[in-house]
Amino acid sequence: MKRTERVGAMLQILRENPNKTFSLGYFCDMFDCAKSSLSEDVSAAKRALEISGYGRIETSAGAKGGLKYIPSISKKAAENLLNDLEEMMGEKERILANGFLYISDIMFHPAIVKGVGQIFAKKFENCGADYVVTVETKGIPAALMTAEMLNLPLVVLRRESKISEGSTVSINYFAGSAERIQKMSLAKRAVKPRTKALIIDDFMRAGGSVRGISDMMREFDVEVMGVGVMIASKEPVKKKVSEYFPLMYLGTVDADNQIIDVEQNVQAIEEVFG
Amino acid sequence: MKRTERVGAMLQILRENPNKTFSLGYFCDMFDCAKSSLSEDVSAAKRALEISGYGRIETSAGAKGGLKYIPSISKKAAENLLNDLEEMMGEKERILANGFLYISDIMFHPAIVKGVGQIFAKKFENCGADYVVTVETKGIPAALMTAEMLNLPLVVLRRESKISEGSTVSINYFAGSAERIQKMSLAKRAVKPRTKALIIDDFMRAGGSVRGISDMMREFDVEVMGVGVMIASKEPVKKKVSEYFPLMYLGTVDADNQIIDVEQNVQAIEEVFG
Repeated sequence: MKRTERVGAMLQILRENPNKTFSLGYFCDMFDCAKSSLSEDVSAAKRALEISGYGRIETSAGAKGGLKYIPSISKKAAENLLNDLEEMMGEKERILANGFLYISDIMFHPAIVKGVGQIFAKKFENCGADYVVTVETKGIPAALMTAEMLNLPLVVLRRESKISEGSTVSINYFAGSAERIQKMSLAKRAVKPRTKALIIDDFMRAGGSVRGISDMMREFDVEVMGVGVMIASKEPVKKKVSEYFPLMYLGTVDADNQIIDVEQNVQAIEEVFG
Repeated sequence: MKRTERVGAMLQILRENPNKTFSLGYFCDMFDCAKSSLSEDVSAAKRALEISGYGRIETSAGAKGGLKYIPSISKKAAENLLNDLEEMMGEKERILANGFLYISDIMFHPAIVKGVGQIFAKKFENCGADYVVTVETKGIPAALMTAEMLNLPLVVLRRESKISEGSTVSINYFAGSAERIQKMSLAKRAVKPRTKALIIDDFMRAGGSVRGISDMMREFDVEVMGVGVMIASKEPVKKKVSEYFPLMYLGTVDADNQIIDVEQNVQAIEEVFG
């Protein structure tokens, strides 16, 4: 087997299993080669990732050591993604008569949410979370991609408790522009006490949903390590949660004059990519 | 730049953009090299994918030609995935007192649904669908991964019409073990008439939900090209849809004797991987 083939196959296997550690021996067996020649392959794989602009390989020593792929995107790719989001969100045909903006297709767009997951994964890679948590429905894709990149389970809070969930804990909270009472519920077996969670959601207006998720986590004795949202509304300025990391800001949607006030959170990119 | 680095970077970029065609010129510019030397790189990349067992590269000629990555998994990896699913679904602590099986964590497990998406993407790679369609909630992860692999948009039918969806079409249908009347709704702008859809869902009992999605697609003049479900219940044998592709079969869940009747659809693997 040639070096190019070994490096390519190694990259592909690592990439398919983000944040999972493989021992050097695993690849020695697979490629039937010595550890010494593999270490050159690892260097080549690292350089290839630098060139591609996606992710990196981390090596660790010791008995439990080995290689793992840390997914990410380059600063340039992240900037391109936010440019795409800004352009998509600014399309006038998204304006609904009631002053809302139609964004379901964006939240379910596989390439968009994958990029969002890569940015969140980089932002929160050292937050120590045991789960990614969201509440149904539109936040699920971005949360799933973040969880995949971080190699963590995804926990989804439901609006209604389902018969297939077993016993559940439910809470009521105020949410939405009309501040209606809403309910969310979580199966008792979904999380373990004294663990840590990363909250990911699609859209934050006043922060009621994220606050609800946080309150639910407290019920389960789970600590919240961070909050990532794809879009935060500019109003109200005062949210029900103090710390959150938004990628985009949405201001007024003026249906009469067909104006959408959308802005990138430029600081987010600076904060994550330096 | 060395060949190993070029091949590695090319693989990573293709892998990050499944089913998207890149011209040879794109990589010539990126790597600052001639087309002739790139064609050897492409051969090496193809061999590397064969070794890794994940996906393949397709090359096409002509002005619009180039390279694209077709995601997939090997037969062995698919078998391992169904083994994992069988083992997880067979865990006795999943049995709920009401005779249901707790499987939410499986449906939201990133690595599991990624593998499921890879199998569905291989099964349906030539079905000609313009969208992947599902109904909230537990089918979203598998449907999203399938859509990502096929480079298609995901369309999610909602249980209730939302104010942020604009005008919607709603239908009522019978579903669940109690054959209750349920509702699903879809934004009018979500799909275009005379297009094609692939339906992906998590669990099929009598097929009411999938039948509901099909009926909805008919309302929108969208043709259904295939149906993939992660788990089909053994009973009732007669479903409300005639053609569907299940990965697993679930029989009786006996809460008294703690027995779960779960089986792989061995034919599915044979059908897809030969």
